[in-house]
Amino acid sequence: MTRDLKIILKQMTLEEKAGMCSGLDFWRLKGVERLGIPSIMVTDGPHGLRKQDTKTAGTDHLGIFGSVPATCFPSAAGLASSWDRELIGNVGVALGKECQAEDIAVLLGPGANIKRSPLCGRNFEYFSEDPYLSSELAAAHISGVQSQGVGTSLKHFAANNQEHRRMTGNSVVDERTLREIYLASFEGAIKKAQPWTVMCAYNQVNGTFASENRTLLTDILKDEWGYEGFVVSDWGAVNERVNGLEAGLELEMPSSRGAGDRKIVEAVRSGRLSEETLDRAVERLLRIIFMAADNKKADASYDAEAHHRLAREVARECMVLLRNEDNLLPLPKSGRIAIIGELAVESRYQGGGSSHVHPTKLEKIREELVAVAGAKASFTYAQGYDLARDSADEVLVREAVAAARTSDFAILFVGLPERYESEGFDRKHLRIPGNQAAIIDAIAEVQGNVIVVLSNGAPIEMPWLSKTKAVLEGYLGGQALGGAIADILFGEVSPSGKLAETFPVRLEHNPSYLNFPGEGNTVKYKEGIFVGYRYYEAKKIEPLFPFGHGLSYTSFAYSDLLVDRKEMTDEESVRVSVKVKNTGTRQGKEIVQLYVRDNVSAVVRPEKELKGFTKVDLLPGEEKEVSFELDKRSFAFYDVKLKDWRVESGEFTIVIARSSVDIVLSDTIFVQSTTVLVPTYTRNSTIGDLLEDPNARSDAWELLKHSPFPLPAEGDEGVMNDALTAFANYLPLRTFIGLSRGAFTNEDLEACLEKLNGSRTVR
Amino acid sequence: MTRDLKIILKQMTLEEKAGMCSGLDFWRLKGVERLGIPSIMVTDGPHGLRKQDTKTAGTDHLGIFGSVPATCFPSAAGLASSWDRELIGNVGVALGKECQAEDIAVLLGPGANIKRSPLCGRNFEYFSEDPYLSSELAAAHISGVQSQGVGTSLKHFAANNQEHRRMTGNSVVDERTLREIYLASFEGAIKKAQPWTVMCAYNQVNGTFASENRTLLTDILKDEWGYEGFVVSDWGAVNERVNGLEAGLELEMPSSRGAGDRKIVEAVRSGRLSEETLDRAVERLLRIIFMAADNKKADASYDAEAHHRLAREVARECMVLLRNEDNLLPLPKSGRIAIIGELAVESRYQGGGSSHVHPTKLEKIREELVAVAGAKASFTYAQGYDLARDSADEVLVREAVAAARTSDFAILFVGLPERYESEGFDRKHLRIPGNQAAIIDAIAEVQGNVIVVLSNGAPIEMPWLSKTKAVLEGYLGGQALGGAIADILFGEVSPSGKLAETFPVRLEHNPSYLNFPGEGNTVKYKEGIFVGYRYYEAKKIEPLFPFGHGLSYTSFAYSDLLVDRKEMTDEESVRVSVKVKNTGTRQGKEIVQLYVRDNVSAVVRPEKELKGFTKVDLLPGEEKEVSFELDKRSFAFYDVKLKDWRVESGEFTIVIARSSVDIVLSDTIFVQSTTVLVPTYTRNSTIGDLLEDPNARSDAWELLKHSPFPLPAEGDEGVMNDALTAFANYLPLRTFIGLSRGAFTNEDLEACLEKLNGSRTVR
Repeated sequence: MTRDLKIILKQMTLEEKAGMCSGLDFWRLKGVERLGIPSIMVTDGPHGLRKQDTKTAGTDHLGIFGSVPATCFPSAAGLASSWDRELIGNVGVALGKECQAEDIAVLLGPGANIKRSPLCGRNFEYFSEDPYLSSELAAAHISGVQSQGVGTSLKHFAANNQEHRRMTGNSVVDERTLREIYLASFEGAIKKAQPWTVMCAYNQVNGTFASENRTLLTDILKDEWGYEGFVVSDWGAVNERVNGLEAGLELEMPSSRGAGDRKIVEAVRSGRLSEETLDRAVERLLRIIFMAADNKKADASYDAEAHHRLAREVARECMVLLRNEDNLLPLPKSGRIAIIGELAVESRYQGGGSSHVHPTKLEKIREELVAVAGAKASFTYAQGYDLARDSADEVLVREAVAAARTSDFAILFVGLPERYESEGFDRKHLRIPGNQAAIIDAIAEVQGNVIVVLSNGAPIEMPWLSKTKAVLEGYLGGQALGGAIADILFGEVSPSGKLAETFPVRLEHNPSYLNFPGEGNTVKYKEGIFVGYRYYEAKKIEPLFPFGHGLSYTSFAYSDLLVDRKEMTDEESVRVSVKVKNTGTRQGKEIVQLYVRDNVSAVVRPEKELKGFTKVDLLPGEEKEVSFELDKRSFAFYDVKLKDWRVESGEFTIVIARSSVDIVLSDTIFVQSTTVLVPTYTRNSTIGDLLEDPNARSDAWELLKHSPFPLPAEGDEGVMNDALTAFANYLPLRTFIGLSRGAFTNEDLEACLEKLNGSRTVR
Repeated sequence: MTRDLKIILKQMTLEEKAGMCSGLDFWRLKGVERLGIPSIMVTDGPHGLRKQDTKTAGTDHLGIFGSVPATCFPSAAGLASSWDRELIGNVGVALGKECQAEDIAVLLGPGANIKRSPLCGRNFEYFSEDPYLSSELAAAHISGVQSQGVGTSLKHFAANNQEHRRMTGNSVVDERTLREIYLASFEGAIKKAQPWTVMCAYNQVNGTFASENRTLLTDILKDEWGYEGFVVSDWGAVNERVNGLEAGLELEMPSSRGAGDRKIVEAVRSGRLSEETLDRAVERLLRIIFMAADNKKADASYDAEAHHRLAREVARECMVLLRNEDNLLPLPKSGRIAIIGELAVESRYQGGGSSHVHPTKLEKIREELVAVAGAKASFTYAQGYDLARDSADEVLVREAVAAARTSDFAILFVGLPERYESEGFDRKHLRIPGNQAAIIDAIAEVQGNVIVVLSNGAPIEMPWLSKTKAVLEGYLGGQALGGAIADILFGEVSPSGKLAETFPVRLEHNPSYLNFPGEGNTVKYKEGIFVGYRYYEAKKIEPLFPFGHGLSYTSFAYSDLLVDRKEMTDEESVRVSVKVKNTGTRQGKEIVQLYVRDNVSAVVRPEKELKGFTKVDLLPGEEKEVSFELDKRSFAFYDVKLKDWRVESGEFTIVIARSSVDIVLSDTIFVQSTTVLVPTYTRNSTIGDLLEDPNARSDAWELLKHSPFPLPAEGDEGVMNDALTAFANYLPLRTFIGLSRGAFTNEDLEACLEKLNGSRTVR
């Protein structure tokens, strides 16, 4: 249905327009009945609906009141490990259907915040440490949900990478880092998938609340990226309502009980706020509200069983086999197996906080193991540790050791209790509880075949790793985690997830360490663009498990890398293809990763950056070709002087890899920049600066004639290697007034600058 | 002789006063004959004089013209490894005597710049990565020189930590880092030793040239630290002369051929510059000039032989035994010894650039080894590699291998050629030349007893370390390096140096890596206070050799650590003593190191920081007690809000260590701060902020009554551990307007803030 929003706007009173800019209550927007503007409802949960009864929930948004049952899919940390756009799109479709059935217009997710530190309590809700991977998966999620006529809310925009002082903290991030890392993770998703809404973050960014940050909400998001939806505040993120509206924050949530609306009305009346600003905001709101209304499916319902099956399929793709010594996994469906650890029974399948879902059903790990293994296997279970406590219980340890000693295999379920990791607070360390680590040590004393299955939303340290034969990272696997774990352990499916984040050997090795969570109210992102694998690679610090790592039960061979051109300009693109073959005996999926390295650069750049990935399903012996398209952004960095992305002309290496550290094939391409840079010289420009510029080189040699030092022969513009030539290289032009002993005057310098700069002269 | 400088000033013309503010030529200041103001001369060289013939040297200050013979002591990197204030004081005395003999009024040194990166080409001239060690040794050097009636020039002030773009680069350093690291290295020396002059650096500091930086040259150096001398520009560091004078730069060097003087005269005439500013500058200059004149010793001379003997004694104390597997060293004075490496003949005993000295004599390494070993040892020599080249020469390798194969020991002399390391440019990597590394590999194939002696001014990577049995770091040992090396290798003396800097396993592990040498003209010190061992300890990155490391031929036992009080205020001090005993069979010296750790801190602090050290000489079996005095600064950090040093009340650990990683004894002390901090609350202060403040705690609990969330019992102000309490902790006060559903209004908030802040209310 098409409407003329401008006509509706004209019919609205100032109070009605201001009213549209804040919620009716905790979950609903306001409508205007007389104008046919409906009230729509939004709800929490990127990986499952958390629709609360608005009558009882009140201002609670942390889920202590119940919500309606909904399918609980793996949370984003798990989803990301699938590296599977289509799969995540399918999750989105299912979520969209559940929203339609529950009369929800907008689902509050996904989250595209970058995992700056593994300590961030909310990492389980985010995808990756890499902006390209994160933005691609967020786009897939958004497109899936929105294909069902339901909106999303891409959150939390931006630089919201910790829970410490979550509502007030000031993230201080330099512009290049913002652009290349933290904003890039949103940018791709916005441009590809146009989420109906974007949720601004609680925190300040470079001294201004995200909710009042015009640079973020208007200049970049809307003007530069072409975002068409509206911006909603994170619940309670509004600081000064009018400032927010002016900056580009259309909707305040939840209801401010009229306070925000009154401020807007007063500001328009007093002339402080232009009514056009308000109108623009309301028009954006109306566009989405009517889109929701028009796409509403009457009497929608969904097949909860089908969604559960999808949840199991998804969970299997999300788990990452980190270690598998002696190919211990998959396990035979026979023999004596000890299941150890309370997490096998009280499973942790989702994260704490606003994303907490009331699942439609829940697969029990222990029961699924028994079911999938079948009759020939026998199981014993020992609790091993008390999930609610950190200290070891001798009785539990003894029981577990006894169970493990008499078994062929011991599967240990360990991980992070929810008290360790949740929305609302950050972890202080990366260890699992001491009693859980103790049980691994104790079991390893009596049992050589130790398999550890992890339930956690973010990396942990594993000082006990060498005592295990296999480690399966289960993340927070959703309501079907039990079956998924059983399917993988017993080889019903080959594991195919790969890490979307680096696991460091120790917390201290993380790039943000020493600058996380900051001092006072401020956190400085001093590691800059060196987040995640970009840091470990550049600093040559070996991680425990690198970004992109994940094992399979089968093997893959790569061949025939083809880069379809040897040269291109930054206005062109290049196609890269490679063949992947399943060389093992089981069906399996491989995640092919493409990284780009700038071989020589004037600015500091990472060793390489992810610029393409694809997941390919292969039967034994089967071979497929996968291909990637690379364009300017694949080679560019953000040039803060130019205020734009720029490619430096030169050779780049295109790397095909199994993981960030396991490079399989590579080739090079020369990319020619089309950006014209015009340097401006000053009296403190150096001889070296001039020598590097073909248009200024001859002037440098003229100046050097005034120098009393022996110099390289003219024309030898190569690297100046010894002390005297380096000395000359670094001389600012002003020094030639002195060095020339009167032959080169201040007036000569000014004339020289005028000649070099033309109209751009700066003295 | 006492003069009334103000009377002399009044007699001077404007032109004469302006003239005093720049050099007469390259090395001399101007005098005013009619007023009896003499022209004094300065000269290069912290570890030896480089007095050039002013008639021929012209504007050359890089030493290509000859200088008069002078004793060449080890350069500062070596001197610092002695950790011996008295010894360095003695070097200063010798230098002062040579200055008197050569009619030099001021010696241009020492350098107190911090070794931020091992790549800095001028590190050999600097003392340490640690500001306390650096400032203590600089003070000893200054006091020694100045005891002879000769001035020093403490350089290069400040944040001059690389040669890349040395004359224009902008060092961007946050205030706390400047204060705790880069300025602290000067501060101690200024306050303890009052150098006659301070030399400002070439570079910019936070956007302002050091030569025009009022904050540095006036506010901090003179007003805050009480500096009484004058500031001289590094040669050519003046950018805009009048700006410099206003900022506190008294003397421009070298002569600007009248240009700077004219600008000063014009500025005074036009009223841009107040004559009082000029007068203050000239008065500081006159004070030092007359001090030089009054202390001039007529017909002074020095005993070159005695100074050479001192140089040998000093060199022995400066070398660091890094490795000594199987106690291979000291060598027996018998058997067949292969001397391998051109550096044994063309020895590198000093650094390149302005500190380059023409030595009075030079001990040859090879000859000294023969002389010290005596008749029972037989030597062969093989060149091994070409010092002027990087690529291996097969013939030289073959000869060296043959020599090593038939010997009992092979002593390999390797290191950095001057083309690798000098004033003027930085290194790009930490490797020794490929042909030198190759010779180590080749020799190790045929000879198990490989001893490496290093000649270099700064750390190198040692991928070949495991192939050696012993490594002696000789640094740049001065003109008596040959005898010193022989004395140590053959056990005439036990080595007693310890590293004043960390040797990393690889360059990438250095804290400044990724931010060195910066981009364009700017270098950001993003690693902040985490320089040197502060970084390796905090990040748990194992160095190749840690700060403070050095082996001996004897052994030492520590006992009876006594901290003479368990509590103190930050206005008091504490005495720490410990006993050290030589438990071996040889005389030896031990460097006792005292570090302080802040056990709990609200700001990020290093694991521990050096706050005391002493070197003690012990005969076999002998025991001595050493003691340290710790005061406020030993426990304080620089509080940027307070703009002062502050101690956080709490427990500190006092650590006695053999090296930064080898802790021997420790004890704790409680330090009570006397600083009263008065917080100011705003609408964005959090509940947690209030809960931490005894004066605001009850208001926080009042507010929390408006919260709909379950909360801990009042009085339970401990860490809030779970999501709900963390959530409450981080709530800004403004949110209670919404959370209270009308019970707590904006007016209530304002009243609350007024009550909390008194007159300091900020809304």
